[in-house]
Order: sequence, then structure tokens, then C-alpha cells
Amino acid sequence: MSGGSWSSWLREQAQRRESLGLRRSLHVRGATEPVLDLAGNDYLGLARHPAVVGAAAEALHTWGAGAGASRLVTGSLGVHAELESDLAAFLGQPAALVLSSGYAANLAAITALADRECLVVSDAHVHASLVDAIRLSRAEVAIVPHNDVAAVSRALSKADGRRALVVAESVYSVRGDAAPLTELAAVCTAYDALLVVDEAHGLGVAGAAGAGLVRDHGLAGRPEVLVTVTLSKALGSQGGAVLGSLELRDHLVNRARPFIYDTGLAPAAAGAARAALRIAATEPDRRRLLYDRISALAAALDVPAPAGAVLSVEMPSPQAAVEAQTSAREQGVLVGCFRPPSVPDGISRLRVTANAGHDDGDWAHAQSVVVQVAKEQLGA
Amino acid sequence: MSGGSWSSWLREQAQRRESLGLRRSLHVRGATEPVLDLAGNDYLGLARHPAVVGAAAEALHTWGAGAGASRLVTGSLGVHAELESDLAAFLGQPAALVLSSGYAANLAAITALADRECLVVSDAHVHASLVDAIRLSRAEVAIVPHNDVAAVSRALSKADGRRALVVAESVYSVRGDAAPLTELAAVCTAYDALLVVDEAHGLGVAGAAGAGLVRDHGLAGRPEVLVTVTLSKALGSQGGAVLGSLELRDHLVNRARPFIYDTGLAPAAAGAARAALRIAATEPDRRRLLYDRISALAAALDVPAPAGAVLSVEMPSPQAAVEAQTSAREQGVLVGCFRPPSVPDGISRLRVTANAGHDDGDWAHAQSVVVQVAKEQLGA
Ligand SMILES: Cc1ncc(COP(=O)(O)O)c(C=O)c1O
Ligand SMILES: Cc1ncc(COP(=O)(O)O)c(C=O)c1O
Repeated sequence: MSGGSWSSWLREQAQRRESLGLRRSLHVRGATEPVLDLAGNDYLGLARHPAVVGAAAEALHTWGAGAGASRLVTGSLGVHAELESDLAAFLGQPAALVLSSGYAANLAAITALADRECLVVSDAHVHASLVDAIRLSRAEVAIVPHNDVAAVSRALSKADGRRALVVAESVYSVRGDAAPLTELAAVCTAYDALLVVDEAHGLGVAGAAGAGLVRDHGLAGRPEVLVTVTLSKALGSQGGAVLGSLELRDHLVNRARPFIYDTGLAPAAAGAARAALRIAATEPDRRRLLYDRISALAAALDVPAPAGAVLSVEMPSPQAAVEAQTSAREQGVLVGCFRPPSVPDGISRLRVTANAGHDDGDWAHAQSVVVQVAKEQLGA
Repeated sequence: MSGGSWSSWLREQAQRRESLGLRRSLHVRGATEPVLDLAGNDYLGLARHPAVVGAAAEALHTWGAGAGASRLVTGSLGVHAELESDLAAFLGQPAALVLSSGYAANLAAITALADRECLVVSDAHVHASLVDAIRLSRAEVAIVPHNDVAAVSRALSKADGRRALVVAESVYSVRGDAAPLTELAAVCTAYDALLVVDEAHGLGVAGAAGAGLVRDHGLAGRPEVLVTVTLSKALGSQGGAVLGSLELRDHLVNRARPFIYDTGLAPAAAGAARAALRIAATEPDRRRLLYDRISALAAALDVPAPAGAVLSVEMPSPQAAVEAQTSAREQGVLVGCFRPPSVPDGISRLRVTANAGHDDGDWAHAQSVVVQVAKEQLGA
């Protein structure tokens, strides 16, 4: 196929990216680098916490490096069951089911519930994993403007007797704002729809106890509200979970292909997540530090304080966003940068995350760099 | 929604499973159980190998419990890059890209390449992750009978100028037989199509060097052949990878949503896979033991010796398969059992895997149990 249609297609695609200035490539991190990471999602600074690393090592030594099989075959380990009961308790839910990633959790939850005969109403800003999950389900989808409860309601009014599902994030991954969960749940109740809330950026961070916004709004355990989480952000590990009723869990075990046909989560990742959950539950000071930091940064940039640890700073243009990111990197600070086509509303943004693991001096430096590079582009 | 349409739908679904005898539930394993696992995929017995566990622990201590971000943000770690170069070298490929699971690797490879304008020709027995990947890609799909090269050729002749992709497994996950890779590759070359080969059950096990069947057939590095693997089977860990040209890797980094929007693989899993790969490459005796075991078992059951470590034993009925499995379990031996609707051809099967990690006495016992329970059902 040298010279064949696939080679030339790949070449054309690469040239197109290049000419649009959209080519992305991987930067490999060293184990110790003199940069401050304000782009990652290890919000509580737990990925390298000794208790988390220690628990991961213990699970690894007890259970081995991998689960060895899918969960329904012989890959359901004690450490999975323990993690599931810890997650359910922390999030105030009857049951949890752990999967190999947050991506897989979203695919599993939505494809096991929605099918061609369903209507899915999705916020325009939900994560790629939810978008892919909806596509894979083959349900009809209505995409509604961000956080527009009236639009959700209008879309649901057209369900016409079909089972309907509303999809949202508790704390949005790029925008950092919160969903109007109480209102969404009320609309779902009114229309007999199921609300799926991805707490990827809520777990460990949002809500009075760090148990996410669903619990904070008194919605945990309500049968019309289902929660998905990832273990890869505030918990500093890898994996995901779906939380809800026992009936829901049983349904997923029997019907969710991305659960049934995927090897169980590695024991070390499950062990790490358990320890991180314990720290999140018992050390509220980490969360307070996080809020102090992100609120101070928001104030310095004149943007609203976010619902979690993610601050979104709108930039006047894609070029401005890239320049701000580059300038910060040159000063040893990594921030995220989102531009079209990866932002549904066409607005380029810096995505800045707080991390309770940085020491005070480092954070002060990072904050001043972020403020400086952002203001430079904002002409302030 | 108590009493709402979702609750009643979940209840109906559960009752339907129950009445069809299809209800599955998770059995949680203890860390040490007096059972012999001939159902899992830790073929080389590496999940608990001290060198593998040690390398996982080292990566965990060096890099932390999680990657902290998606690979394109700040989650590309040295251990990912090292694993990618090890995998590429072992499989004889120019480049590798590591993902969080084999499922994700298949989703990434196929959705980044195929779209509505493509034709995908898929073997009827490919794994659920490949089926889901094809669905998600929205390409037109032609499903052809198992290992039927002429049918693949006929399907490709209808591509009508569209980019076309052929999807197969090197060693089939349930049937345990091999794909006719040389013939498939020739047909793909003739029709300018791309051959995607999932080596989930080939890596570490199949081929003269354990480097899978694509390399064994002299097809590694050919631009018309792309390989996916999982790190969760013979390598005893978690994760997956896509292997092929540098152009392909660059394309996936830029376009594969299940790669771009997923947190990087946990360091411990990557470290474990590297050590397992080293053992697979340097200790051919493990592979020989595996073949001796699975061939002896095949001979005792009068079925053809498999291409890898998976032996498929056809059962006269779903009930017979379940009875054989239950009887084996009562004697301390776990085997897999596949029945409709999870078998595309309606034939119920025991799936028995060899494991080089069992000691000789245990294996002899396991083999005699499997032969006895199978023959009981086969009336032999
Ligand atoms: C909102 C949201 N959901 C799901 C995911 C996927 O989680 P994971 O990276 O654990 O697969 C992410 C991030 O990656 C996310 O931001
Ligand atoms: C053929 C095949 N491909 C892909 C996968 C998925 O790999 P993983 O379990 O690592 O997600 C599996 C098994 O789970 C498989 O059997």
C-alpha cells in the first residue's frame, strides 16, 4: 500500500493539521522536572502521596500487577469490592461498579441504558467520553445550550413516550462551572427521565465534604440520578466507576459491554484510589487550600470563582491562548489551552487547575505567572 | 421516578434475564483461593511474577499512582515512552502508542481511521471492543463468516473507491484459532485496504518468538497492516497499544478521541508491562511449557491444538456447557463458558486457557478435571 489510498490519506490529514496550525504532539515528562503543573487533574496532590503510593504497592503485592481477566470471568478481586463499597459510602449511593477508566465508565453507563428507542438530551459542553457513549448507544440525541434547563425541559417534552436520559457534568471539565443539578433533577422527575451526572471533576473536590455535587444537592441515592466518576483526577490514580441503585449495578454487570469485555482494573490503581478516598474524606484542609488558591487566582483575574479546582480563562483568540500558554511554560508553569475545534462554542480558553500538592512558594510563583500571561493577552 | 419508566424497565430487563437463565453476577476472588484458574488470560503467569511486581512498584514510586492528566496535556511520562519503544521493538513495528486498556486501543485505532465514508469488513467473531469501535466509527460494515478470505475479498470488491479496512484477531479470543493473516494481507494489498489485527491473545504467546502472528508472518512494519495489543493478558498488567507507522501514531495522537480525552495509563501498569515483555522475550521456556500444556489438553479432548493459549471446546448445548463449568468449579478448577447470545454462531463452548504459572501437579489435576467434565457432556 506504499502510495496506496491510506498512506496518502494519512499524509493529507497531517498536511491539513500542519497548515491549520493544529498539529499536536506528545511532550514526554521526566520524573523530576522543574515545572509547576497547573494543567493536570491531580487536584489534591495525591498521586505521589506516600499513603496512596503505599496502598497501591500493597495491593500490587497482594493481588499482582493485573486482574488477569474480565470482572465476570475471574477478574473480580477483593480490592475491587472494597473500593466499590468505599466509593458508594463516600458518595452516599447504594452501589458502585468499578471500571478500568472514567471513559469506560461513561461508555458503560450510557450504552447499557440508552438504545435506538431512547432520547438523550446532552449539554453542549459534556466530555468526549460522554459524546462517544451517546453515539455508541445509537439513541437519538438532542444537544442543548450549556446549563440551559429550559432547553432541557423543551427537549424532554418531545420524548413522546420514549425512555429519556439527560447528560451533564457536575463540574465541567474545561469551563470549570457547575451544572444546575437541583433544577435538572426536577425537570427529570417531571418528565420521568434519568439524569446522568459525570462527577469526574467533582469527586474529592466539590461539595461541602468533597463528595461531589450530587450528594451536596441531596440527590445521592435518588433513583432518577446516576453518577459516574473517574479515579484518575482528584484521587490521583486510574479507573472509573458508575454509582446508583443495586438494580442499576446488576443491569450494568449484565449489559454494559465496556464493562463485560474489558479486563478488571489493575489492583494497584484500585488500592491507590481507596487510600486517596480516605484522605479526601478525612483531610478537609487539602480541599480548603485548593479553594483558597483557585478563588484567589479567580479574583486576581476578575473571573468568577469556579465550582471545583478548574479555572477557565477566556482568551480573545486561539493565537492569544497559545501565546499565553507558551509564555507561562517559558516561566516554568504549565497550563492547559483549549481552542477550536475542541471547544463547542468556539471560544479559546486557558484551563488552569489548582493543586493542593504544590508548596506555598511554588503556588505563589505559579499564580503570578498565570495572572501576568493572561493579562498580557487580555490587554489589561 | 420510583415507579417511573426507568425503574420498571430495569425490573423488566432483570426478570427477562432471570427467566432466560441468563443472569450473570460477579464472584469476588480472595487473594489466595484454592482454585486453579483456567479461565483467565495471565497466560505466562506473569501478573504475580516478582520481577513484574517489582518493576510495577518501581514505576509507582518514581512516577506516582496515576499519570495525572491525559497524554497530550501533561500525562505523557518517561515510562510510557519507554514502554512504547519496547513494544515497537518486540513487535517489529516502527512505532507504538500506549493507551489505558486494550478496549481503548481498539476504539482509538478504528475510530481515528474509519468514518462514514469508509467500508469496514469484519470477521464475525471479533471481540466486542472491535465491534463497538466499528459502530462508533459510523462506517458501513460488512460482517463476513469466520476466517473466510474469499468473503473478505468479495466484500472489498464492493468498496467502490471508499477507503476500506479489514478487521481480524490474530488468535481469536473465544475460539482460540488463528486468522489466515498472509491471505488476508494479500487481499488487502490487492484492494488497497488496511488490515487491522488485534493481537490481544497473540502477544507474548503466539509466533516463534512470542511476538505475535503478524511478525511471525513477516507482516510487521508493512504499512497496510496495523496491530493492536493489550497489556492485560500475557503481560499480566493493564493497558493497550496500537502499533504501526510513525504517520499512523501521529494521526492517532491528533485524532483518536479515546486516546486524546483519556488519562494516561497508570505508571505501575506501564512498568509491569515492560518487565513482562522482557521476560516474554528472554524466557522462551515459559511459552514452550504453555504449548506443551495446551497441546496435551487438546489431544486428550480430540480437538485441534490452538494457535495460542486458548482452547475452545464445543458443547452440545448451553446447559451442557454450564454443567461442565459447574462440575469443574466444584473440583477447584475454573474454566470459561460461552453461550448464546455471546457467541455469534450459536455454539456453546468451554473456553480453557493454559497458564505457565501453575506448577506441574496443579496443572495435571486441572487437565484431568477439564477432560473429565468435558467428556461427560460430550458423552464420550
Ligand atoms: C468529565 C470527564 N469525564 C470523563 C473523563 C475520562 O476519565 P478517564 O481519564 O479516567 O478515562 C474525563 C477526563 O479524562 C473527564 O474530564
Ligand atoms: C481480542 C480482544 N481484544 C481486546 C480486548 C480488550 O482488552 P482489555 O481487557 O485490555 O481492555 C480483549 C479482552 O478483554 C480481547 O479478548
